[in-house]
Amino acid sequence: MKAGYLQYTPMLGEIRKNAENILEFIKSHKPDEKIDLLVLPEMILTGYAFPDKASLSRVCSEEFNDFTLAFCKEVSSVTGGYTVAGYPEFKNGLFFNSAMLTDKTTLVGNYQKSHLFGLEKDVFEPGESGFKVFSTPDFNVGIMICFDWVFPESARTLALSGADIIAHPVNLVMPYCQRAMFARSLENGVFTISANRCGTENWGSPLTFTGESIIYDPRGEMLARGPLDGQELKIVDMDISKAANKNLNSVNHLFKNRRTDLYYSV
Amino acid sequence: MKAGYLQYTPMLGEIRKNAENILEFIKSHKPDEKIDLLVLPEMILTGYAFPDKASLSRVCSEEFNDFTLAFCKEVSSVTGGYTVAGYPEFKNGLFFNSAMLTDKTTLVGNYQKSHLFGLEKDVFEPGESGFKVFSTPDFNVGIMICFDWVFPESARTLALSGADIIAHPVNLVMPYCQRAMFARSLENGVFTISANRCGTENWGSPLTFTGESIIYDPRGEMLARGPLDGQELKIVDMDISKAANKNLNSVNHLFKNRRTDLYYSV
Repeated sequence: MKAGYLQYTPMLGEIRKNAENILEFIKSHKPDEKIDLLVLPEMILTGYAFPDKASLSRVCSEEFNDFTLAFCKEVSSVTGGYTVAGYPEFKNGLFFNSAMLTDKTTLVGNYQKSHLFGLEKDVFEPGESGFKVFSTPDFNVGIMICFDWVFPESARTLALSGADIIAHPVNLVMPYCQRAMFARSLENGVFTISANRCGTENWGSPLTFTGESIIYDPRGEMLARGPLDGQELKIVDMDISKAANKNLNSVNHLFKNRRTDLYYSV
Repeated sequence: MKAGYLQYTPMLGEIRKNAENILEFIKSHKPDEKIDLLVLPEMILTGYAFPDKASLSRVCSEEFNDFTLAFCKEVSSVTGGYTVAGYPEFKNGLFFNSAMLTDKTTLVGNYQKSHLFGLEKDVFEPGESGFKVFSTPDFNVGIMICFDWVFPESARTLALSGADIIAHPVNLVMPYCQRAMFARSLENGVFTISANRCGTENWGSPLTFTGESIIYDPRGEMLARGPLDGQELKIVDMDISKAANKNLNSVNHLFKNRRTDLYYSV
């Protein structure tokens, strides 16, 4: 199968222009073949820096939920496959830092970021959805968002719940994640796709996003890395059966060898 | 405080010669100051490749437990601090792949490898000790051995149990661990010391050990890396208070931000 990321730098608050530009970028850069799964960054249509609920409420609404869903379906129409994209979700009067999974006709799944980073805590609620895995005919995909990566339990929960691929929309500002995802893929025997953005926004102080979107295979091999700065649609081949094989060698199995009798109980 | 590793390649089965040579090596290479914690590799006095219980029983006995204890105490006499060393432990008629922690007079702690690697399963029992943290006046140290690193729960359990430093005796033959320990140190906010060996032994097929013993600080900064081949006593400065600070920034705490309500239950 073919899967990958869009590394893209949105204009803060320019929702419709971002949507148009992104669709145009994907159309003009996509391969001829179907893209089975495309992952877009966190808050890709809005940008990131909404320092208070008043400013966030200008982009985050039920109408915007619907707009994002329509956008993702359109991306899927272009790629022929599934789309994961981060967006600020409005639900029951509250804001969540979320990501949705769609195909060209349907909302397949939704995930609300579990571990909020930095000043996000001022505007978003901690996610309530939990780490869920969504099954498609060809692969099982789990979603985590950005800072979730620091906590090994995030990817672990998705992998133990059956994910072959972890779709990971990010807006990275620290220098760690791209290196650490090596461990997340290897320890869980899963593909990981971290779709990052570039550029600088101001949230109290300037936040510069670090690019270098990254894809690892289930043995930690790096399949792609985006530029430090700049936009890129990157699609790689994935032999999804590799994620089903949790045997590191003839006797060691990443999951069956777990000594759950000895682990710290959550 | 000062802590580090001995990267050393023992001669298979030559217990007394290895002990003599290692003590001589440490004496001739140690700094003038006290070494608060020195970590030696897995099975450092015996070598690694004992392909069946008959061959292992020639080195692994109650007498050898005592010999290892005396050796570690002597190392501590030379360094002035604590010593962690891997050894095959004989207990109640069974063999464990273990490591002990001593000072110059006392056995402070013992750990039995929880996750056995490859053909070790033919000769060793899975450890029963669990991941315990041992307190000294100046630091809290947890022990894990080699393949334990693959399972994020190992280091996590030690860190959540209060470890400042993870002492990690290893006999690495896969190419992954040295890179992945970056994540183990960062995600847990702990120092990690992985003490490896070099050389080749034969256990069914040739096993070549990968050197590059490695030390990371609680933010994933590499403090030392040994040579690919060759022996080295490496001691670094550690500001142990860094391990007590689990704040990645003013609002994000590595432990307090855990969403235990959402994690896969062991």
